[in-house]
Amino acid sequence: MENNALIVDSSPFPPGLDERLAAQLTFIAEVDRLKTVLRASPLAAADRRENDAEHSWHLALMVMLLAEYADEPIDVGHTMKLVIVHDLVEVYAGDSPVFDPAAVQGQREREAAAAGRLFPLLPEDQARTVRELWEEFEAGTTPEARFGRAMDRLEPMLLNWLNRGGTWQMPGATEGTVRAREAGVVTASASLGKAAELLVEHGLRNGWIRRDMEGVQPSS
Amino acid sequence: MENNALIVDSSPFPPGLDERLAAQLTFIAEVDRLKTVLRASPLAAADRRENDAEHSWHLALMVMLLAEYADEPIDVGHTMKLVIVHDLVEVYAGDSPVFDPAAVQGQREREAAAAGRLFPLLPEDQARTVRELWEEFEAGTTPEARFGRAMDRLEPMLLNWLNRGGTWQMPGATEGTVRAREAGVVTASASLGKAAELLVEHGLRNGWIRRDMEGVQPSS
Repeated sequence: MENNALIVDSSPFPPGLDERLAAQLTFIAEVDRLKTVLRASPLAAADRRENDAEHSWHLALMVMLLAEYADEPIDVGHTMKLVIVHDLVEVYAGDSPVFDPAAVQGQREREAAAAGRLFPLLPEDQARTVRELWEEFEAGTTPEARFGRAMDRLEPMLLNWLNRGGTWQMPGATEGTVRAREAGVVTASASLGKAAELLVEHGLRNGWIRRDMEGVQPSS
Repeated sequence: MENNALIVDSSPFPPGLDERLAAQLTFIAEVDRLKTVLRASPLAAADRRENDAEHSWHLALMVMLLAEYADEPIDVGHTMKLVIVHDLVEVYAGDSPVFDPAAVQGQREREAAAAGRLFPLLPEDQARTVRELWEEFEAGTTPEARFGRAMDRLEPMLLNWLNRGGTWQMPGATEGTVRAREAGVVTASASLGKAAELLVEHGLRNGWIRRDMEGVQPSS
């Protein structure tokens, strides 16, 4: 952010608003920015890139519809919370496309700094709750976080398939890096992992994903 | 829809995909269209209109953060499900801006037709579940639906406030129609209703909302 101005500074809330609610609405206004953070993934339904807010909505819907494939039982509502908040820090840190090694450098530090600026806009108890949800998603060690992360891997694979390439065509994407993403689906669900494998196998066959020997190797 | 083609028709899934999962992924691909359905509301963070998918994400986050203000206890996860699916039928029916009387005409019929086309893409049990969630939201008779609908009213009020006008400047919007929207917040939460009243009161004072005697009366 250029100048640390908040969204709400352009039109401050009227006096008389309860202090706790004002903090919550300030946060809710601030994260409107998530709608402007573009991902690398192209939409299936239009010729433009996806933004983080619509991506997060899509994951929440996928959690509802695909939860039956989780290898371990998951709390669907909790998993939906994880995916709704998982990209919030990108309002300040920006998106870091997985197939762009330069973008991924310093990602963790940028996102930690963003979290430190964004979450404290909320009342202290909710700042803690939202941070815990974000950290749970990032760590990926609970069944819910594993499944949420699997959706975060599967959704762009689906968009790539529907675009006959999409981010699979980025310079850093080859069979190896694509399969590394696929692994995040397999970890949470054998059956969704099998579907992801089918997409990758046919994506390779169709020439939508480069084989490692043909493409540029991802820098280490 | 020009020709009843599905999103997935442009790039059919590979053979070998389980039939139930193929139906679910077909639906998940089809509703990518929600990202292209524009609402009347302007974003706070950029100079463009909001789409239904990012709007639905914003409501889900608001449910998480504002549930404490619900006058009746609500199941947060269930309320999130309601708002995630509440606009799905608009992938075929389009958005019907509340302050545009012409757009609202025939809305119910258009949306029922859209539901009849969209939901059956899912396996039968999930088609039924998603339809029930949509109908629950529309009816607004459960505490969860009332609260979800309150978020659906409050979010555009917030965007209007942050835009110093927004859809409050549409020809069909005057104090009366704006207050009719506010009523949907009050019904679910006295404290959020009080906040909405503050926004309207100051919106009127700032000239961002027309008083009924100044403006064009909404057509009946």
